[in-house]
Amino acid sequence: MRKLRITVIGASEASAELCSLAEDVGRLIAEAGAILISGGGAGVMEAASKGAKSAGGITVGILPGTNENEANQYVDIPIITGMGHGRNIINVWSSDVVIAIGGGYGTLSEIALALRTGKPVIGLSTWDFSIEGTNESSHYYQVRTAKEAIREALKLAAQKSTIAEKDKTF
Amino acid sequence: MRKLRITVIGASEASAELCSLAEDVGRLIAEAGAILISGGGAGVMEAASKGAKSAGGITVGILPGTNENEANQYVDIPIITGMGHGRNIINVWSSDVVIAIGGGYGTLSEIALALRTGKPVIGLSTWDFSIEGTNESSHYYQVRTAKEAIREALKLAAQKSTIAEKDKTF
Amino acid sequence: MRKLRITVIGASEASAELCSLAEDVGRLIAEAGAILISGGGAGVMEAASKGAKSAGGITVGILPGTNENEANQYVDIPIITGMGHGRNIINVWSSDVVIAIGGGYGTLSEIALALRTGKPVIGLSTWDFSIEGTNESSHYYQVRTAKEAIREALKLAAQKSTIAEKDKTF
Amino acid sequence: MRKLRITVIGASEASAELCSLAEDVGRLIAEAGAILISGGGAGVMEAASKGAKSAGGITVGILPGTNENEANQYVDIPIITGMGHGRNIINVWSSDVVIAIGGGYGTLSEIALALRTGKPVIGLSTWDFSIEGTNESSHYYQVRTAKEAIREALKLAAQKSTIAEKDKTF
Repeated sequence: MRKLRITVIGASEASAELCSLAEDVGRLIAEAGAILISGGGAGVMEAASKGAKSAGGITVGILPGTNENEANQYVDIPIITGMGHGRNIINVWSSDVVIAIGGGYGTLSEIALALRTGKPVIGLSTWDFSIEGTNESSHYYQVRTAKEAIREALKLAAQKSTIAEKDKTF
Repeated sequence: MRKLRITVIGASEASAELCSLAEDVGRLIAEAGAILISGGGAGVMEAASKGAKSAGGITVGILPGTNENEANQYVDIPIITGMGHGRNIINVWSSDVVIAIGGGYGTLSEIALALRTGKPVIGLSTWDFSIEGTNESSHYYQVRTAKEAIREALKLAAQKSTIAEKDKTF
Repeated sequence: MRKLRITVIGASEASAELCSLAEDVGRLIAEAGAILISGGGAGVMEAASKGAKSAGGITVGILPGTNENEANQYVDIPIITGMGHGRNIINVWSSDVVIAIGGGYGTLSEIALALRTGKPVIGLSTWDFSIEGTNESSHYYQVRTAKEAIREALKLAAQKSTIAEKDKTF
Repeated sequence: MRKLRITVIGASEASAELCSLAEDVGRLIAEAGAILISGGGAGVMEAASKGAKSAGGITVGILPGTNENEANQYVDIPIITGMGHGRNIINVWSSDVVIAIGGGYGTLSEIALALRTGKPVIGLSTWDFSIEGTNESSHYYQVRTAKEAIREALKLAAQKSTIAEKDKTF
């Protein structure tokens, strides 16, 4: 039985408040025994990785460039894609649940890819899709605290086996 | 001097009204001497390609899968990526201007990638970013008709040399 | 009925002799009414594109980086992948036949991907797989002149419909 | 200080002898405290992952498809790329050293990408580049046993800081 994997997405430039939130989320992910996946960079990604390492977790960074040195110091396993923002789909596909914290257009592209491919997204101070009106089924959940984010993520992961599997659909 | 390239994005399942709009846009792109790039699939992508071919244009389809037969019949040059939605960044990077027509989360991910990488986006009956409040500079323009879309696209292309070049930034 | 697409691969640094060969191959591709696909760079890629344009052909360049200016001046349609050598698989998948001219390890990786995915490869002064002993079926053909390369390519393309289709197999 | 990462490449269909060799290599990688990266599939990839887990190591699988279930049971962390053979470059870029065991054209494409990007390759019963005659500098080392492979890998990793860094070059 594989460990749960949770991807945290968010901007590489983020306020102290958002970074503090991301650090809490990362710590709680590790305390829950899950692996943290992120884009491996600065800001929200670094804060979440720092939090996960503070609780003895494992951290993966899916890097956009081709140089291991792009990874922040809290990334255990840098995955080097060289794909720029094209790697966002790998972040989404590789996780059981996505948690979005703050963020701009890069984060929005990842949320949209997650919703498009049926991956659950939990939003913290980010783009709000909770009253989304399109005809595609939404798995977006907005929460207010790091604890709520993890509680929701674990609940969704437990339901995972009952969710119809969504494979590559274009 | 290379021909202008314009990417049209939109859903593979679209209403007759949106498809008619896309066909007009495709035809006007070809009449302006530009090359049409799309995701190569059905719906908005097929309608735009059909329009471009009706005016003797050249059409490129950046396919998500690995099979040439995914391309609609109006695609002259299928580019086979096998990357699923990961290919959205190629659609964005390869064009001078992006025109979004209708669309769901897949289209939203492409609009977000375009805005993130500084590529101008013209929106027709799609997600509205015209009063966007983030601190990233937006190049989003909402229009109401196919003619307005092309007029705006050609204007933006003419300004292109004066826009600071945006390279790979993560 | 779509035009035939032929990918020419080879090194970005190449001798005058190899470039002359590539220019001949490019010209013959265009004269045969086929579209030339290449990596869009210098050396063999530029020479082949120059040859194709001299005969009024259409040239596509699948660029490794994120900047249109990487494309040589004979590329009509730059496809911007940002994937580095990861784009080699797109060059292979997008064509009906691959012609390899000279080349080092980058070219070898493309020949290997072509042979792995069942795409025919025609070799001109390049890595020789014509007496290959593995148990994977080889579609490698070694030739000595540009004319032979095109003759072989057109013959293989004509057989294409009778070759069992090879889709994404890992 | 990050743990060493070693990528093992090889065919998904492999003889019992090659699989036994791969299992030894995987076990020795974990005993050396390094992380094992592979393509996550069957054959050589599964055997190496099994060996690493038998010694308590961490295993990463860079999957070609979009479904976690493609990963063999010994993969701790599946990275889901959806890129088919395009993911080979990620396997190469993400590791400090590549060990190739047996293999056909897919393995050859990865060896070629590694040599092209300056990543050291250690070969065990695979394509032989040890007397390679191109003008690109080769970092290929042929060995005969699993122990020699690991000894060579650790030696190369120790030299790593003294090797001129090779970034994205096309």
